[in-house]
Amino acid sequence: MGKAVIAIHGGAGAIARSRLSPEQERAYVDALSAIVTCGQALLAGGGSALDAVTEAVRQLEACPLFNAGVGSVFTHQGRHELDACIMDGRTLEAGAVAGVSRIRYPILAARAVLESSPHLLLIGEGAETFAFLQGLEAVEPAFFSTPARRAQLERAQAAQQTLLDHDGAPLDSDRKFGTVGAVALDLAGNLAAATSTGGMTNKLAGRVGDSPIVGAGCYANNANVAVSCTGTGEVFMRTLAAYDIAALMEYAGLSLQEASERVIGEKIPVLGGSGGAIAIDREGNLAMPFTTEGMYRASARVGDAPSVGIYREGCGEGGHG
Amino acid sequence: MGKAVIAIHGGAGAIARSRLSPEQERAYVDALSAIVTCGQALLAGGGSALDAVTEAVRQLEACPLFNAGVGSVFTHQGRHELDACIMDGRTLEAGAVAGVSRIRYPILAARAVLESSPHLLLIGEGAETFAFLQGLEAVEPAFFSTPARRAQLERAQAAQQTLLDHDGAPLDSDRKFGTVGAVALDLAGNLAAATSTGGMTNKLAGRVGDSPIVGAGCYANNANVAVSCTGTGEVFMRTLAAYDIAALMEYAGLSLQEASERVIGEKIPVLGGSGGAIAIDREGNLAMPFTTEGMYRASARVGDAPSVGIYREGCGEGGHG
Repeated sequence: MGKAVIAIHGGAGAIARSRLSPEQERAYVDALSAIVTCGQALLAGGGSALDAVTEAVRQLEACPLFNAGVGSVFTHQGRHELDACIMDGRTLEAGAVAGVSRIRYPILAARAVLESSPHLLLIGEGAETFAFLQGLEAVEPAFFSTPARRAQLERAQAAQQTLLDHDGAPLDSDRKFGTVGAVALDLAGNLAAATSTGGMTNKLAGRVGDSPIVGAGCYANNANVAVSCTGTGEVFMRTLAAYDIAALMEYAGLSLQEASERVIGEKIPVLGGSGGAIAIDREGNLAMPFTTEGMYRASARVGDAPSVGIYREGCGEGGHG
Repeated sequence: MGKAVIAIHGGAGAIARSRLSPEQERAYVDALSAIVTCGQALLAGGGSALDAVTEAVRQLEACPLFNAGVGSVFTHQGRHELDACIMDGRTLEAGAVAGVSRIRYPILAARAVLESSPHLLLIGEGAETFAFLQGLEAVEPAFFSTPARRAQLERAQAAQQTLLDHDGAPLDSDRKFGTVGAVALDLAGNLAAATSTGGMTNKLAGRVGDSPIVGAGCYANNANVAVSCTGTGEVFMRTLAAYDIAALMEYAGLSLQEASERVIGEKIPVLGGSGGAIAIDREGNLAMPFTTEGMYRASARVGDAPSVGIYREGCGEGGHG
């Protein structure tokens, strides 16, 4: 079945075994496993990488466990501001939305921008108006709210802290980052990447991180690599983390593993950042480096059993992700 | 006086001699000359590259000739949505705002984000609220309007076209792009870059181009280069044009001239884009490539006479830019 493969992530951060109950761990593993298996089936059936990453991220947005779509964190004002981006490695076309709060699946809005607009990035109400004209589903902002996120905002405001993540840890260097993403290589040899986020708990209104920025949180180019990132958004923006992996492969001749380790393990920490990335090169090689305690992740090659991981040492469901 | 140098641009596009009256040409040359001379004086007095590009872009925003700040184009809804970005090559810190319509000098808001916020990019009302809390000057959106831009919107709407620029030409492959920018190397060897724009005439509400995106329309790194771009925004975003010049120098060993020509002259046109860039490397070398008929531009080395250019063959005021 060739080299077709899909990988997904649900955020990186301080995810120690001791912090997740067995039930919570099971819920994350089950969700990641189901979503990556669906993506694998899409690819096996001849589906495009672009369709596979769109559907995987749409399912991650639909799952309240992850900080994207339903289950998104609250801003300081008690609102939701969602961002998403998708890139087609075959054409280098991309679409993104930022600061939207009424589009049920932000990744579908990003896909619509890619396909049905001369633009690449639409923000705020303009993005929502465009999405609804394209026939995408509208929801009330409260649709994205969950009691767990509301409690998290209240904790953050009590502590006057900005939380990047969806556990209760304060803003520190090893927090859980709330971003989801997918990368895929299809049977035709095309690469694609998609990223979506609910942002930071208690963040300033209007803050946009790396997720919707082509080259920062999301990048795909058939010539080299597809990448989706999760981590300290501002540092990933300053380093152009996703594109930098591609540039190191293209211009410096690094392997996928070398390039992704260089960016995530060296260049991001030098600027005080942390996080992870999932990346697939045009040969179907897979890299999932992260500098945090854990990263929710899963991958599945067409024809093989899926692999799911949370902690650094890996966990069940077919072993290390 | 060392290698200190500043360069500015006021947009690239279809700027043929035949389209500008002698009076219009004189107005552009005078404005560019005055602004670059001011930046040169700042650097000569020991001012930082960051301060020099901030002040140069602030003056370009204040000048109604250019599509940034006063003189910004209108969106389809008859509004103004301004974007700006600044990056400090010494620290790799950056600040940006997008989709703002009530901040007198968007570049000062970007600078405030860089200096006084943990974030990098703020959009819309959240960006405005932040800027006003920082003490920046608020204006009514109509402050940015000029009769010439209003007439341009009416022409565009009559033709049902999106104009990227501030002449009357329709959307085509050789139009005038409305963006301003500055790059500088100071006496201490620090690089900085800044970019600001009023966007595209008759654009969809919420469209954000390359100007406020680190690595697309603006990038600075003391290790290699400072870059400000002007052109087909979406293509500059897909190619990470500004960062790509840096990556080609850093990873592939290209010279400033080679890297900037490769990106502007080859990689952008391959994707159907056009435009230009101004770039200064850490040795003080200067490149100002463009693929359009003209690019408003000027440069000044500390200790030398300024140089101003509009057309491909250069024009008065100390010769080719």
